[in-house]
Amino acid sequence: MYAVKYYWGDVMSKNMDVSVSVIRRLPRYYRFLGDLLLSGTERISSREFAELIGVTASQIRQDLNCFGGFGQQGYGYNVQGLHSEIGKILGLDKKRSAILVGAGNLGLALANHMRFQDRGFSLIGIFDNSPSKIGIAVGDCIVRDAAELEDFCRDNKPEAAILCIPKDVAIVLTDNLVSWGIKGFWNFSHYDMSVKYRDIAVENAHLGDSLMTLSYCIGDIEQSANN
Amino acid sequence: MYAVKYYWGDVMSKNMDVSVSVIRRLPRYYRFLGDLLLSGTERISSREFAELIGVTASQIRQDLNCFGGFGQQGYGYNVQGLHSEIGKILGLDKKRSAILVGAGNLGLALANHMRFQDRGFSLIGIFDNSPSKIGIAVGDCIVRDAAELEDFCRDNKPEAAILCIPKDVAIVLTDNLVSWGIKGFWNFSHYDMSVKYRDIAVENAHLGDSLMTLSYCIGDIEQSANN
Repeated sequence: MYAVKYYWGDVMSKNMDVSVSVIRRLPRYYRFLGDLLLSGTERISSREFAELIGVTASQIRQDLNCFGGFGQQGYGYNVQGLHSEIGKILGLDKKRSAILVGAGNLGLALANHMRFQDRGFSLIGIFDNSPSKIGIAVGDCIVRDAAELEDFCRDNKPEAAILCIPKDVAIVLTDNLVSWGIKGFWNFSHYDMSVKYRDIAVENAHLGDSLMTLSYCIGDIEQSANN
Repeated sequence: MYAVKYYWGDVMSKNMDVSVSVIRRLPRYYRFLGDLLLSGTERISSREFAELIGVTASQIRQDLNCFGGFGQQGYGYNVQGLHSEIGKILGLDKKRSAILVGAGNLGLALANHMRFQDRGFSLIGIFDNSPSKIGIAVGDCIVRDAAELEDFCRDNKPEAAILCIPKDVAIVLTDNLVSWGIKGFWNFSHYDMSVKYRDIAVENAHLGDSLMTLSYCIGDIEQSANN
């Protein structure tokens, strides 16, 4: 039993064996390995892989050692094997059922383009409370009335909820979603949910914070160019 | 002169005085301070502020000390003052001009809801190459033909570009955008740009990586519940 608070771009202390920094690098490794597979690469040295990703070879080794290590000294990584292992560590084979709440532009962008199936999830329901949205087809789903959420959760037991709704709506709705069995949130509403929930995974996707970080970084480069 | 590689959720080595972890916490501090301001709070103890944010008071002190420190022992933080100082550190007062390329659902969601003005930027142009998109009004902008990008950049000198375009288009376009004067990218296309660019800030917003991280975290909680 522990509270889980996953902030994008930050490492929070919690009772996990593996640090969030390591976990956050795994999807990138997985993505690059997928590209290598597509390009027909069967084996890659740890040095080449590190250069490709832009971290050190020792960083990759350390990260993979958290899960047992997958390379052989002097032999490099088997691309297919490592891709598959990291996919399993990430739980991408689980295809957990997910619902998306809020069929605005962001919700529709995610529903249409996110390739949930490749990333551990299966999108089984989309909800909105606007009559102009209810009934429209998005991918394999029809947007449902948000009033049906409780019944839908009881009948279909989705594990994850993607929140593309305003902050004030999210604050009210998350309690209900937790009580209806949701185990993890991908939260795009601009507030930090998590503090009061225990045994619930929260991935806060704070796009606004990301934009402010870019603002800092451009300024930092300017300043460094002027010095 | 240094290469800058900002990956969401990761700390890359580079010649900056302040670590990316610290920088990434600043927007959250700023956001919470903004909420406190709205609620009329004038002063807050470092302990209360830390509890609110979910980090330790010493973490906050350490982070702020990177920029000179802004609290007084036993006196807490002046909310308005700290909010304003962190805003300046983040460069939010600069209102750097930005263009958005790709007026699909994600691009439209960002253009309509991102409140660029509050986050250091001013959105001055939106571009797409689809005739069905060109000419439509989005906020204060009219979607322009992507063929006008070079002329627009020459005439208006935007500093940042937001990329909401497919990977293959982004790979081709970024070289041009850099040559047309773009200094920073907010990159939503699923590839890691940055390695070859110097003196360019890149904030890679890998939504897919974020989703895979959630997949891991739900599995981790399940496993811990079963143990």
